Amino acid sequence: MHVSFVSFAKPVLHGYFRSSCSWRVRIAFALKGVEYDQAPVNLIKDGGQQLTQQYKAINPMQQVPAVEIDGITLSQSLAVIQYIDETRPGPRLLPADPKKRAQVRMISDLIASGIQPLQNLYVIQKMGAEKMQWSQHFIDRGFQALEPILKQTAGKYCVGDEISMADICLVPQVYNAERFKVDVDQYPTIKRLNQALLEIEAFKVSHPSRQPDTPADLRA
Amino acid sequence: MHVSFVSFAKPVLHGYFRSSCSWRVRIAFALKGVEYDQAPVNLIKDGGQQLTQQYKAINPMQQVPAVEIDGITLSQSLAVIQYIDETRPGPRLLPADPKKRAQVRMISDLIASGIQPLQNLYVIQKMGAEKMQWSQHFIDRGFQALEPILKQTAGKYCVGDEISMADICLVPQVYNAERFKVDVDQYPTIKRLNQALLEIEAFKVSHPSRQPDTPADLRA
Repeated sequence: MHVSFVSFAKPVLHGYFRSSCSWRVRIAFALKGVEYDQAPVNLIKDGGQQLTQQYKAINPMQQVPAVEIDGITLSQSLAVIQYIDETRPGPRLLPADPKKRAQVRMISDLIASGIQPLQNLYVIQKMGAEKMQWSQHFIDRGFQALEPILKQTAGKYCVGDEISMADICLVPQVYNAERFKVDVDQYPTIKRLNQALLEIEAFKVSHPSRQPDTPADLRA
Repeated sequence: MHVSFVSFAKPVLHGYFRSSCSWRVRIAFALKGVEYDQAPVNLIKDGGQQLTQQYKAINPMQQVPAVEIDGITLSQSLAVIQYIDETRPGPRLLPADPKKRAQVRMISDLIASGIQPLQNLYVIQKMGAEKMQWSQHFIDRGFQALEPILKQTAGKYCVGDEISMADICLVPQVYNAERFKVDVDQYPTIKRLNQALLEIEAFKVSHPSRQPDTPADLRA
């Protein structure tokens, strides 16, 4: 008799405490109540542990996050989040209504394709002294587009009154904006949503200041 | 009696013949057999028609594509494609199996978040004389990761033997790679899949060389 234990193994998250894309996945696991193990990848130490041959075998893109789950290895945070949503019980991370689902994906992709890649570590490492100005420019550009969209779609959260993948993307992006000294007060809807979401337990436990690899001086 | 005609109106695609993200949406419409109207937005003429106040009201991100469909306006090509998939009959653009869906989304996002944003017009306009070298670097970097992933997931197409959103993302990205003089021969799986997909009618009719706004000298 063949017995598969695959579905009983805890997922393993290869991530970094301060990576906004890793934080997205941590929020999704927390919202769904899924237990997982963390395998920290320090993006700074030793010239970047994501660049090792060992990690390249896990994610050829040499980025975090990557997740080992149900016998497969996935990278790209939104693919991981939607896989978790489709295979685990608990609150929906995408609404049932197709139009609302589309709005959630539009907002998520505006952040995940339109903002984050341009202030990603491997990009700004190429920018040298201009990296702060470069990152601010692209975050501000994205937030200027996101603010009027959220004004139309938001209720209590990004799309209506239910937490979704859009919220999972928003909070870590605001955290990045603050790191790059973007004035978030210019975007009242973004600011309001971020504040409301940071009160929620799943966003708190997954916060960069509370991870196994968070350095002592950055711990909350 | 109230009669809604919304679902009878043809979708309107605001796009540009050479935009790889617009091409993605055109492929999805073609695979699904959905008729739509095109409202071309010339990204070069008049300093860029996407920058007008009129277009900003359609897509605050001032990018193409944007799609008016079923009474809502959506931007972000993958959100649009998945909306089309979830609301229109015809062949599935994402597989039924959750693991395969996750692989399709992983490949799609590797391209849509990991490659395309870094060689997007508004980014390379900031790079000046370095723009060719910059774009080549990030396309090569992405293809070096994509090649081993596709080696594992591909059958006849990117994930198994069914056409999916991953294929919809791959072909326009290879087109961009060729524009930026990347040597695609280095990536035999990418090259093989691209060649197979270009034989399919939906990829042909949606090609940049055959759109209403294609300039005469670039027409096929």
